[in-house]
Amino acid sequence: DPQQLDMAMNREREMRRFIVMDQNVDEYYGSKVRKYFEANNVHYKILSLPTTEETKSMDLVLSILQEVHSFGIDRRKEPIIAIGGGVCLDIVGLAASLYRRRTPYIRVPTTLLAYVDASVGAKNGVNFLQCKNKLGGYTPPVATFLDRSFIQTIPRRHISNGLGEILKMALMKHKGLFDLLKSHGKYMLDTKFQSHNGLVNHGDAALKTTRLAIETMLEELAPNLWEDDLDRLVDFGHLISPELEMKVLPSLMHGEAVNIDMAFMTYVAHENGLLTTEEKADIIQCMKGLELPVWHEDCNLHLIKKALVERLKHCGGQMRMPLPSGLGMAEIFNDISEETLERAYKLWASE
Amino acid sequence: DPQQLDMAMNREREMRRFIVMDQNVDEYYGSKVRKYFEANNVHYKILSLPTTEETKSMDLVLSILQEVHSFGIDRRKEPIIAIGGGVCLDIVGLAASLYRRRTPYIRVPTTLLAYVDASVGAKNGVNFLQCKNKLGGYTPPVATFLDRSFIQTIPRRHISNGLGEILKMALMKHKGLFDLLKSHGKYMLDTKFQSHNGLVNHGDAALKTTRLAIETMLEELAPNLWEDDLDRLVDFGHLISPELEMKVLPSLMHGEAVNIDMAFMTYVAHENGLLTTEEKADIIQCMKGLELPVWHEDCNLHLIKKALVERLKHCGGQMRMPLPSGLGMAEIFNDISEETLERAYKLWASE
Repeated sequence: DPQQLDMAMNREREMRRFIVMDQNVDEYYGSKVRKYFEANNVHYKILSLPTTEETKSMDLVLSILQEVHSFGIDRRKEPIIAIGGGVCLDIVGLAASLYRRRTPYIRVPTTLLAYVDASVGAKNGVNFLQCKNKLGGYTPPVATFLDRSFIQTIPRRHISNGLGEILKMALMKHKGLFDLLKSHGKYMLDTKFQSHNGLVNHGDAALKTTRLAIETMLEELAPNLWEDDLDRLVDFGHLISPELEMKVLPSLMHGEAVNIDMAFMTYVAHENGLLTTEEKADIIQCMKGLELPVWHEDCNLHLIKKALVERLKHCGGQMRMPLPSGLGMAEIFNDISEETLERAYKLWASE
Repeated sequence: DPQQLDMAMNREREMRRFIVMDQNVDEYYGSKVRKYFEANNVHYKILSLPTTEETKSMDLVLSILQEVHSFGIDRRKEPIIAIGGGVCLDIVGLAASLYRRRTPYIRVPTTLLAYVDASVGAKNGVNFLQCKNKLGGYTPPVATFLDRSFIQTIPRRHISNGLGEILKMALMKHKGLFDLLKSHGKYMLDTKFQSHNGLVNHGDAALKTTRLAIETMLEELAPNLWEDDLDRLVDFGHLISPELEMKVLPSLMHGEAVNIDMAFMTYVAHENGLLTTEEKADIIQCMKGLELPVWHEDCNLHLIKKALVERLKHCGGQMRMPLPSGLGMAEIFNDISEETLERAYKLWASE
């Protein structure tokens, strides 16, 4: 109301928060979150949404922004809060970065995958024309709140899903992390990454594992936040999986598709003399222990090559293929031949 | 075709350029631009679009990106080129910044307004929910190509439109620029900002004027590219005009709406003792000489207050009102009272 200009100029504004929450999260934690804001006298609005790969679109971004706009927030001081899995964090990050050219936002990951992956770094995005994260940007959140207790209510399959990305960091950079996954993977699946004191055998495996996963991730992302350097070890498992994941949507979860990609690449690395037969077997065994798929019938040679042609487009005409060169070590290759890929595929398909 | 993986890996790619051109510009210059790309063996696609405030939307951004995607460009090495007025540059800037999280782009302004305004700085954006530039970001182009010869084919009213933004910089920062506009404004309108040698009386007024306009603009924008500091002199004329421009769309051009805002603010400055009666008259006289409107009936007190309430929201609860404090000098005020505004409005409306 324009009559209230003087009032608007002099008013101490109440605290306002706009929250986007995945609707599954809302079911489990919505009432707790509402109570929190009420107890702190925050004027808030919670937008509860289905946030999945299928709804991860600019349309959803715009409908969030419509709600943000009608609620009204200060574009500098009142961050939008995203509570959910990776898709939720990615969508809200993009929405916030677009609104009035940049509105701060806070990430609260509620799945294991988001906890170790989408919560780190600056990336956001949505799918476009059946392509994964084709539109988006790099806008870091003002804060990320990490609370592992969210993870206790997610299904076992979703824990495996997160373990896929943790395994990625282990294979690329950290033998100790790989050993943790091998020794305590099943235990962490059973206990849903909660910390339990007094269980001597496993120590605080969940804490150690998530810390190492995030630390190794930060090590890789921090010096290259805007991806000026396209040689990225964190792209391991992400050369073929985008094509696969989008093709079979919604049957594979992100970490599952990543793991299938990594399993194939493990064969490529072996075929290229980078891994011994024992190391290869060790990796595949670990994947199975984490209850991750190591094969998918739709991940055929046609799809693999199509995905790699996309990769070439995406990476300035170079393949930039990260491959393990031992356990917890990796290098980036541009010269893996089509023939090597075919031999690796044959072996992978036969086992 | 995935069969062509080896080929894709080894191919020297031809040069490719995707160009978005305003359809009016295409009529005048399209064939010349096409000849240029053909002569240089560039594989190109020109998307010719109506780019106006009414079409400046996320929908148009997405339809551009659909075309970009099907044409196919290297996301690091093949910049998208925008040729047109400010709307065209803003839309394409946003599209490029979103595509694969950042694709380089080049600005080629073809109007006087775009030449001195949209071509400078990092901002891009689209309108959303009837609000001007509500969505967007800050992504600088890799280059801006300035060619004043485009301006010779735009209508006289569009030249005045650009003069509005030039006058803004003059009033805020540069008495010399103000004097240039006073002395040579009509001449530059008549000659459409082209340089003519041998006309001693006017020297190269157009060149001097555009240079000073861009230089003063850069001085203001460069240290504050991401608008961390919300005290911006370049916001002069932009407190009320967004509301007015969107309300009467398409009857006022951007620079015209800005000028009406500046005319009112000149009265506010005078009412506040910042300008003498002579300086006020001098400014209004100069505006009229540039054939810019100094009044609009829809710019009433109701709209002014509504716009300022929006301003408060947009600027963290402070008005941050730039006002001239002499010719070519300015300050930013947060304490202009509603009463002062009302008195200024009364006087403005009566003259």
